[in-house]
Amino acid sequence: MIKTELERVLPGDIEKRSFEIITEELGDRVLDPENELVIKRVIHTTADFDYADSLIFSEHAVELAKAAIKEGVRFITDTNMGKSGVNRAALQKCGCTVDCFMADEDVAEAAKRLGTTRACASMEKAADLGGDCIFAVGNAPTALVRLYELIKEGRLKPKLVIGVPVGFVNVVQSKEMILSLPDTPFIVARGRKGGSNVAAAICNALLYQCI
Amino acid sequence: MIKTELERVLPGDIEKRSFEIITEELGDRVLDPENELVIKRVIHTTADFDYADSLIFSEHAVELAKAAIKEGVRFITDTNMGKSGVNRAALQKCGCTVDCFMADEDVAEAAKRLGTTRACASMEKAADLGGDCIFAVGNAPTALVRLYELIKEGRLKPKLVIGVPVGFVNVVQSKEMILSLPDTPFIVARGRKGGSNVAAAICNALLYQCI
Repeated sequence: MIKTELERVLPGDIEKRSFEIITEELGDRVLDPENELVIKRVIHTTADFDYADSLIFSEHAVELAKAAIKEGVRFITDTNMGKSGVNRAALQKCGCTVDCFMADEDVAEAAKRLGTTRACASMEKAADLGGDCIFAVGNAPTALVRLYELIKEGRLKPKLVIGVPVGFVNVVQSKEMILSLPDTPFIVARGRKGGSNVAAAICNALLYQCI
Repeated sequence: MIKTELERVLPGDIEKRSFEIITEELGDRVLDPENELVIKRVIHTTADFDYADSLIFSEHAVELAKAAIKEGVRFITDTNMGKSGVNRAALQKCGCTVDCFMADEDVAEAAKRLGTTRACASMEKAADLGGDCIFAVGNAPTALVRLYELIKEGRLKPKLVIGVPVGFVNVVQSKEMILSLPDTPFIVARGRKGGSNVAAAICNALLYQCI
């Protein structure tokens, strides 16, 4: 039977209550304490418990990301939607910024000239700019493939790669490429699922631990 | 075994190929032709085939929405993330606009004064502004509950309610409230799943049919 009666929860308590429900429904399932808040926030964002299994963390990815955030890292997303999902107040408190180059004119031109995607060209632009970056890829597998290549070529050394594009063409493969990197911290949602909302949720889960 | 070899697909063909894969995997499943493009775009956005079952359309919701779009309807979202996911070029070609009032100062003040959520106050603001609107709620069940009340009170007559919030507290219930409305066109993702990405995908699926 479908619930129809509204639960009385104060606006400020909705998130807390949601996390309680998630914890209840995870039951006996033991999550790595280091990764727990990220996993639960992704489930909170998607209502999809598959992420308890599909999220793969490289060793101490969360601790390394938190250290980078404390140094004022720059987040780079592959969609403006992902960018707008990253909590502005949390970024500011941590002295971090978020950028997305997808809609930039020089990126569109480069993509056209090279016969690639704008997502791919936007990663290239980020690599050229340099600095300490966390990449949050929630949409374009081509962005993730290009990140992999830039890392392999030694042109990029990200503080973290959040690899959670969603979809059907080269999504699974692009994630496996990131999972194969030996020295790059990553958080990857194995399989087809993910999204800009998932990417933003992971950024926020990391930021909230640094406030 | 996990696929690791990249599929060769030109950037401009990725979406087409994705829809082919979705159609293949839906197999013998027959979708209502009127709703098919919306359902497939949501699956494309989420890689989640659950939506083939959970998306509920009121009678001719899609045709009614398309007629409203052709008259230059205003889309209202409950998150800036949802807003930023609605395709700008498609909106412009259709003579439509998209607004989100969540970050407005008067909305924050009203929410505080009334002890409600900003999402709820932002729906109130939309109702006060009047005009023909399509509401796309991908995040806040409180927004959906307030929409239901405004419709019941006769203060609002939306051209379409896209009811796809995600989460654990009152999400299921708020959707059932919209499903119970006899004279309001709706597209609802029954259950806990949804999101700003899903809301934007539905807006885009409707807009693309009007270009």
